[in-house]
Amino acid sequence: MLKKPQVEFDPLSHLHNTYENDLKIVNQLIFEYINTTEPLIEKISQALLSAGGKRLRPLLCLASADLSGGITKNSHKIAAAIELIHLATLLHDDVIDESNLRRGKKTANTLWGNKTSILVGDFLFARAFELIVKTDNIRFLEILAKASTTISRGEIAQLRCSCSLELSTEEYLKIIEYKTATLFAAACQTGSLSSEADENRADFLYKFGKNFGLAYQILDDIFDYTHKNRGKETGEDFREGKVTLPVLLGYNADPNKHIWHKYFGENKENYNSFNAIKNRLNNLDSFNQSIKIAQEYAKEANKMLESFDSHVKKDFSLLLKSFLDNNS
Amino acid sequence: MLKKPQVEFDPLSHLHNTYENDLKIVNQLIFEYINTTEPLIEKISQALLSAGGKRLRPLLCLASADLSGGITKNSHKIAAAIELIHLATLLHDDVIDESNLRRGKKTANTLWGNKTSILVGDFLFARAFELIVKTDNIRFLEILAKASTTISRGEIAQLRCSCSLELSTEEYLKIIEYKTATLFAAACQTGSLSSEADENRADFLYKFGKNFGLAYQILDDIFDYTHKNRGKETGEDFREGKVTLPVLLGYNADPNKHIWHKYFGENKENYNSFNAIKNRLNNLDSFNQSIKIAQEYAKEANKMLESFDSHVKKDFSLLLKSFLDNNS
Repeated sequence: MLKKPQVEFDPLSHLHNTYENDLKIVNQLIFEYINTTEPLIEKISQALLSAGGKRLRPLLCLASADLSGGITKNSHKIAAAIELIHLATLLHDDVIDESNLRRGKKTANTLWGNKTSILVGDFLFARAFELIVKTDNIRFLEILAKASTTISRGEIAQLRCSCSLELSTEEYLKIIEYKTATLFAAACQTGSLSSEADENRADFLYKFGKNFGLAYQILDDIFDYTHKNRGKETGEDFREGKVTLPVLLGYNADPNKHIWHKYFGENKENYNSFNAIKNRLNNLDSFNQSIKIAQEYAKEANKMLESFDSHVKKDFSLLLKSFLDNNS
Repeated sequence: MLKKPQVEFDPLSHLHNTYENDLKIVNQLIFEYINTTEPLIEKISQALLSAGGKRLRPLLCLASADLSGGITKNSHKIAAAIELIHLATLLHDDVIDESNLRRGKKTANTLWGNKTSILVGDFLFARAFELIVKTDNIRFLEILAKASTTISRGEIAQLRCSCSLELSTEEYLKIIEYKTATLFAAACQTGSLSSEADENRADFLYKFGKNFGLAYQILDDIFDYTHKNRGKETGEDFREGKVTLPVLLGYNADPNKHIWHKYFGENKENYNSFNAIKNRLNNLDSFNQSIKIAQEYAKEANKMLESFDSHVKKDFSLLLKSFLDNNS
């Protein structure tokens, strides 16, 4: 007898299935707002759309609306606008980070140059705001304009702190809160408000999203060392001199600090030292320590869901858990 | 007896004096929205603020409000937000154009690198939208989000058409309408609406601003060849391969087209050919022909003021005239 293949439950796919029809509307809106007759925009847009992506932020937005009272037309618009803001930041990030790969494909800056990426990023960002205007609710504009400001503040602080091993853990956490967790939080908060939940309910989901985002970014920073085949190049953060949580923990735990300055100083050694630093981080238990901190944020995120009563609550918890379990 | 020194009337200074107190409030708002505790933003912001600038768009916004019924608190907010959008586009433009000088000073990208300029541009753009939200009027967000989209479309089309002598005059005009005239138009329209004028009145000022902006950009494109000491480097457009109106008119009037391909083709000759092309444009009467087209737009702009009845109408006409007279 043939053994049944073991199908592992994947909470992300589960959420994709649950909101399949809503995501179709969201993707249609993204397509509509990206699409123009300008050939240069068209090229990049096609590439961005065909590259796919997890649509994690739109899913958080839709599920938060569902959790708070029900998905509305405004939930779709906000979910699409948030993905447009995210795509705009990706285009600019790839220029800043001089990245070559994103989601397993060559980045827009590699294919069409930095100039095009900068301008198409600006275009997508402005289009996002045109779409938010269509909700006819200035509160969404308030939240998402503030979130956009915060994201760029995080990116700027990260650029300033590049290669700085004297960064404190608090500063690192502030940077990832700004650059990543803010948009997760805003997605959950605006999703909740789009279902016409009150501000207090939405605030719980804001905090859920923020803690989820912090856990997510810490894991992403670990995976840059430990995981291959993520669609990005392994060791990209190291190559750029980004001082992330495992590095900070490793540096602070290591009596031989001078070695680290060789890797992260201004005249740092080249990419070949990647495996040396990875082994050192492993020996110093920095990856496990970092995962523990991510788990704390995930716990905090789960707490925020306690007052809600819906199947979505379980889906959210499972989604968080799946990111954490994927750490080996 | 000593002869009285002849003081020429300067409509721009006159407008600055007329709206001195309002501009103070606008500048205070710009300062407030630019200012942060992030050291990298602070550096660039200080440089942007100390570099000054004509504050032409805020002036158009304030004067349009005055012309339409009176300056309100929202006029100040909109005027400041439009200048923030303008400053954001300047930061990105200077990266795209690889410019070294702006308003007679070293550009931000020269001083602090492209990465910082991209991110601080993003920051200023998002801050502008935070400020527009403070008007509590979604119509302003609608107009200015659309204007921002249009500006980036213009910039992208310009990048695509770089070095292309086969550009039609219509395409050139569309590019400068998008990248420049749109924000002039939006400044006048939102200024008018901020005085609580109706949409029809505001539409006249939108068209005034659009035609003013077209005339302004054509003159700016001429001055890149003819005027020194503008705070920019002369011949910058030529160096970047920008095909502007005088070039298009010259190329189309010249039987020796092959010469032009040497200057604007992909393997164009270096900057030393600037004087040769400038003389050629002069001999082909391209500068005068371009000025004539700018004058047509100025005439059209003046027509839009006919139904208004205020001293500002005269100020606007004189301002336009002063730009045109400054062409020798």
